[in-house]
Amino acid sequence: MRNMTETELTDVVLERYASTPDARLKMILHALIRHLHAFASEVRLTEDEWLAGIQFLTRTGQICDDKRQEMILLSDNLGLSALVNMVSAGVPEGATESTVIGPFYVPDSPQREWGESVLLREGDDPTLVIRGHVRGPDGEPVPDATIEIWQTDANGQYDIQDASQPENNLRGWYRARPDGAFLLKTIRPTSYPIPTDGTVGELLRATNRHPFRPAHVHAIVSAPGYRKLVTHLFDAEDTWLDSDVVFAVKSSLIRKFERNESADDAARWQVRAPFWELHNDFVLSRNG
Amino acid sequence: MRNMTETELTDVVLERYASTPDARLKMILHALIRHLHAFASEVRLTEDEWLAGIQFLTRTGQICDDKRQEMILLSDNLGLSALVNMVSAGVPEGATESTVIGPFYVPDSPQREWGESVLLREGDDPTLVIRGHVRGPDGEPVPDATIEIWQTDANGQYDIQDASQPENNLRGWYRARPDGAFLLKTIRPTSYPIPTDGTVGELLRATNRHPFRPAHVHAIVSAPGYRKLVTHLFDAEDTWLDSDVVFAVKSSLIRKFERNESADDAARWQVRAPFWELHNDFVLSRNG
Repeated sequence: MRNMTETELTDVVLERYASTPDARLKMILHALIRHLHAFASEVRLTEDEWLAGIQFLTRTGQICDDKRQEMILLSDNLGLSALVNMVSAGVPEGATESTVIGPFYVPDSPQREWGESVLLREGDDPTLVIRGHVRGPDGEPVPDATIEIWQTDANGQYDIQDASQPENNLRGWYRARPDGAFLLKTIRPTSYPIPTDGTVGELLRATNRHPFRPAHVHAIVSAPGYRKLVTHLFDAEDTWLDSDVVFAVKSSLIRKFERNESADDAARWQVRAPFWELHNDFVLSRNG
Repeated sequence: MRNMTETELTDVVLERYASTPDARLKMILHALIRHLHAFASEVRLTEDEWLAGIQFLTRTGQICDDKRQEMILLSDNLGLSALVNMVSAGVPEGATESTVIGPFYVPDSPQREWGESVLLREGDDPTLVIRGHVRGPDGEPVPDATIEIWQTDANGQYDIQDASQPENNLRGWYRARPDGAFLLKTIRPTSYPIPTDGTVGELLRATNRHPFRPAHVHAIVSAPGYRKLVTHLFDAEDTWLDSDVVFAVKSSLIRKFERNESADDAARWQVRAPFWELHNDFVLSRNG
């Protein structure tokens, strides 16, 4: 092993990882090592460039805390998250498509009651009613489904980015009724720039890329016996749909928010007219 | 861009990075994106596996501080550092070969005088005398060269890992004389395990790999007009030479430390007999 060509070195490294007991881990590490070495070899990576990369990744990790996940954001920006989503998606025809989870998901958000708003700041009124059913692949109602949503406030910032918002503002989960019906209230989402004050911002500036994501509501829909769905509802009228900075748009996830000026409808849903309305079913695929 | 195959997604991501003004950065990012996507695609990476990887890299960054560089250690352990060293080495025949810098280098170590020991703890005596010349490719003496060394104490730990050692223990730089001659005093190095209390330790355990590096003294040799040399001096009698955990051994860097029992020689070098002796020249290549 002492005097090697680049190819021989890669083989030696692979050999050293050959005793990995878990076959799947071994396969992943072997492929990672091969591709990582091929990358460095192909571009003739210099030691200074390597060190710049090491420092970039180190700082990316160090920016992360319980409210910020810059490493996911980096993966999103390199299109890796979207690719992994494609690789592992495989949803049957007719089921709602999934997309990336992104860096702003927070586990254990609070439950909201039927028709309750996710707006927690006093005086903030919901402007968007989302209603529909959670269904299975044969159109059957899915009982006991939960629908968790999160999105930015009108200023384009999530609660965890913005100290002026109450904790869990525009975040929460709803339980569907036995027939799968749900009723959520929120605001019409806005497009927003991803955070640019960290390493991903450096990357965007160095590559002349804009930081915008098209307006969307994140959703995770779960039910016993069904595969967990991580998805977005995109606003059809957004101007960034074709250049989402994190490559997460799928046509089937684009929704038209309908303007409703009816005072009767507003009274029915307990919102102020005019408001935006989205009738949206989530179609889950079965486990296994 | 909204409905894509995996290959189409990769192409879209590459296109989005196509306006990178710096041609070299664009080339590196394009190659990185292609290889990263090919890796995830090839192993059919699941979202859970992706998240485990994200969390692993995040923690690797977070373990780093001004004294610890786990990201370099990870690169070393994947053989990436050794590969980059090979890629950018290209030393002319006869010049001393380089190897990885490792995670334990600390800039701005203190200067030591001619023949001074790098041991700072009272009562610690040097057991190894290293002397030789810094030469150029034609055998010419290199004036004004500096030789910086660092190594672990006898317990296998660097000063920055071990609160019981004085700062800069076994660390320092020497200026060669006008004829290129230098005289360093230290201890015979020991093999040691790399730190296993971080993410790299997790990786080693999950892959059944031992954590040992063969005994070595790190050296950086610099001089105006010559290419900076980052290298090791390995102990020929070490048992880990053929399985260095970070793949950094090169045959040409293995040295025999000679035992010397002569009281006269000890008096000449101002050490206690018996001691270890290494006559070693560093041969630099010219800049450019």
